[in-house]
Amino acid sequence: MKKDTIAAISTGMTNSGIGIVRISGDEAFKVIDRIYTGKEILSKADSHTIHYGYIKRNRDIIDEVLVTVMKAPKTFTGEDTVEINCHGGIFVIQKILETVLENGARTAEPGEFTKRAFLNGKMDLSQAEAVIDVIQSKNEYALKSSISQLKGSIRRKIEDIRKEILYHTAFIETALDDPEHISVDGYGERLRKTVEEIKIELKKLISSSDNGRIMKEGIQTVIVGKPNAGKSSLLNVLSGKERAIVTDIEGTTRDILEEQIQIQGLNLNIIDTAGIRDTEDIIEKMGVEKAKEYVKDADLVLYVADVSRSLDENDEKILNLVYNKKTIILLNKSDLESVITKQDMKEKINKIISKSISDGKDISSKIPMIDISAKEEQGIQEFEEILKKMFIKGNLSFNDEIYITNLRQKSALKEALKSLEKVTESIYKKMPEDFYSIDLMDAYEALGSITGETIGEDLINEIFSKFCMGK
Amino acid sequence: MKKDTIAAISTGMTNSGIGIVRISGDEAFKVIDRIYTGKEILSKADSHTIHYGYIKRNRDIIDEVLVTVMKAPKTFTGEDTVEINCHGGIFVIQKILETVLENGARTAEPGEFTKRAFLNGKMDLSQAEAVIDVIQSKNEYALKSSISQLKGSIRRKIEDIRKEILYHTAFIETALDDPEHISVDGYGERLRKTVEEIKIELKKLISSSDNGRIMKEGIQTVIVGKPNAGKSSLLNVLSGKERAIVTDIEGTTRDILEEQIQIQGLNLNIIDTAGIRDTEDIIEKMGVEKAKEYVKDADLVLYVADVSRSLDENDEKILNLVYNKKTIILLNKSDLESVITKQDMKEKINKIISKSISDGKDISSKIPMIDISAKEEQGIQEFEEILKKMFIKGNLSFNDEIYITNLRQKSALKEALKSLEKVTESIYKKMPEDFYSIDLMDAYEALGSITGETIGEDLINEIFSKFCMGK
Repeated sequence: MKKDTIAAISTGMTNSGIGIVRISGDEAFKVIDRIYTGKEILSKADSHTIHYGYIKRNRDIIDEVLVTVMKAPKTFTGEDTVEINCHGGIFVIQKILETVLENGARTAEPGEFTKRAFLNGKMDLSQAEAVIDVIQSKNEYALKSSISQLKGSIRRKIEDIRKEILYHTAFIETALDDPEHISVDGYGERLRKTVEEIKIELKKLISSSDNGRIMKEGIQTVIVGKPNAGKSSLLNVLSGKERAIVTDIEGTTRDILEEQIQIQGLNLNIIDTAGIRDTEDIIEKMGVEKAKEYVKDADLVLYVADVSRSLDENDEKILNLVYNKKTIILLNKSDLESVITKQDMKEKINKIISKSISDGKDISSKIPMIDISAKEEQGIQEFEEILKKMFIKGNLSFNDEIYITNLRQKSALKEALKSLEKVTESIYKKMPEDFYSIDLMDAYEALGSITGETIGEDLINEIFSKFCMGK
Repeated sequence: MKKDTIAAISTGMTNSGIGIVRISGDEAFKVIDRIYTGKEILSKADSHTIHYGYIKRNRDIIDEVLVTVMKAPKTFTGEDTVEINCHGGIFVIQKILETVLENGARTAEPGEFTKRAFLNGKMDLSQAEAVIDVIQSKNEYALKSSISQLKGSIRRKIEDIRKEILYHTAFIETALDDPEHISVDGYGERLRKTVEEIKIELKKLISSSDNGRIMKEGIQTVIVGKPNAGKSSLLNVLSGKERAIVTDIEGTTRDILEEQIQIQGLNLNIIDTAGIRDTEDIIEKMGVEKAKEYVKDADLVLYVADVSRSLDENDEKILNLVYNKKTIILLNKSDLESVITKQDMKEKINKIISKSISDGKDISSKIPMIDISAKEEQGIQEFEEILKKMFIKGNLSFNDEIYITNLRQKSALKEALKSLEKVTESIYKKMPEDFYSIDLMDAYEALGSITGETIGEDLINEIFSKFCMGK
């Protein structure tokens, strides 16, 4: 374990009020003593105190600063830590970092502070991964989930499961070592029950990752409808709300078609599509094909229908496309005279869809419908309520549930589940007990990679390399 | 003076390791007590200590944080101050700010923390202005100058001058009130001497603003030369160096032509121009005209000549354009066979220029010439040395000299100078003493606007409105 002293700029690289250069390691206080002048010698200051003074480089004053002194082990990294709060100009922050590097620290790699926190036992790997998730959170649910993970919810869950598995492996090993005193009669059945319970827990965690993805990355939403149904107006109305929060976030991926908006604490990544209709125009046809593809991958489809025009075969096409997705039908232009009603739409759905699929069941009742007027911003609140019911009350009720938002963790859970399924199979086939033990240990190992106990240095490095500088 | 409690995000608005929400005002501790949970009650904590804990909004944990507690008056603003160091994600920082605002603080205006520092007497206006200059510094000289101003160099200078002026005004007033006891015989001559001394100081400060501008905004540099002389290659070689520092800075204004580079601690804003030659092509002609305009406004001209081609009438045109500017001639393509030498260039300069201007003097010796090869990156170091001599050793030797970098301060100095010139004139014309006193007071007032003692609220608001949020 490297114990050299590292330093990096921990704040954003734009001119702003305050910048922070963070130093961590055995020599952190030596470094700061060499470059700080103020009333105290900082290496002799109490832990968790902050000091006014200047950073000097040779004889030049670089900046007026506040320096925070935090002594090991009660620090983020578990090491002696110094944070220099300076003026938030890029040039001056870089000068201070340079001065720190000239005086005994080396540049920290991305995520190296958190990596040290992990290596020094301040947190497990799932908590370390939560650090970057907190930083990248784009909505309340993602933030809550990451904070819960940061506080150890996943770590505790995984540790409990591993403890259980270890107990059984140990029992089997001991029994096999000492068959005269320890009997394995009926043990298969006991183990089977435990394994089933664990499998249920793992499955629950794995299936939480769908909601986890929605929390973390947002709801992939596609707006469809016939040309001129008001799809773009809807997008404008929706994105007009809270646009500030969205545009504040740098690096938001957006192309011409995609808008990222936040409604009821959820992020919607909305794709506006070309109007869907029968057409001979090649370009338009391509747009329609593209729309169909987007619908296939969507978490949510918003079908905008114009109530001032009759339903036709194009609406039927659209209904065929969306009826088995999570869909909301928005009956737009409620400000104009209506020629269709919710009832018409329901009948259309039941008529078209039922024929081939539902054997006469009322499919339409599963698809929420709202009258809206994008033009007059009517019905938007009702839409938000339905959205909330669909994604928050329905699935994302954030109690103390754990949501897996990390693909690495998800695949480790799947691997563990696979091994436990082998255990079930072995029990079913009445294989010798040492067979159980091998697969149990595989599950134990797989789960250990989540907390970082059974994971190689390469993988650890890869995980932290995705962090930002200074964290 | 408003005493409500203000709060803002003080770090940059990009996802990063650490973010800071700063709170200042009488209720800062009340606010933090409402939303912080940890081992201590922060309002009861010692000043200048830092505390680990959580920020809560209602019952939800928003983030794991370190909170710095600093008690009035030993703080930046002079008020009770709390800084919440949280994870540096935009969303989570905004959530924390929201929570702070819901619990008794209001959003700080841009620069409001510094404005409070000024209003609470922690610094004068010149020091407050230095705060934003430190943040915006783009090179060492700008930084040193701003730090010196932040530490009060301008304030002290102005205060000394004002004290002197005030002494004389008071003397005149007293003498006029009590002519029997205080004689003003020969006083005019004494005052004249003092005023002359002050005028010299003011002129020195005013003239420092040229270097001040160069330090702050960079050296406006134009590259000229015939087509294919290697102008763009030179720009590439120069900008290849330390490009990292340049591209790190967001918001750097750059159009297609302009490159901002740093050499020897100086910023050069380099404009690459179209090759200059006689041409009938209209577009090219426009480019040449544009180049001539740039040369007129430049602080520095780099004339790139191709030594593998003979000098011709186009070179003469260029020399005519640049000889009375700060110019460096770069004899490029020293890697190829030369058909011209420094001597040829010198002769050309003396022949062309001397004819009309210099009466046979050796103008060419004033223009530094260097052999370079942009292609092989030869001669670049010599170029940098010359640049340094021209702009640093020559003018920008940064000792304890004061550089005026602020236009507002410069115009106040000019105004004061104008008033003092009136005093000189009144003395010369042997006007009555109360005439002196009026103009002296005008100078006193003008100088007071630099330190902020004689400045209206509107102007103060305008000055701070140019600050960034959170400072």
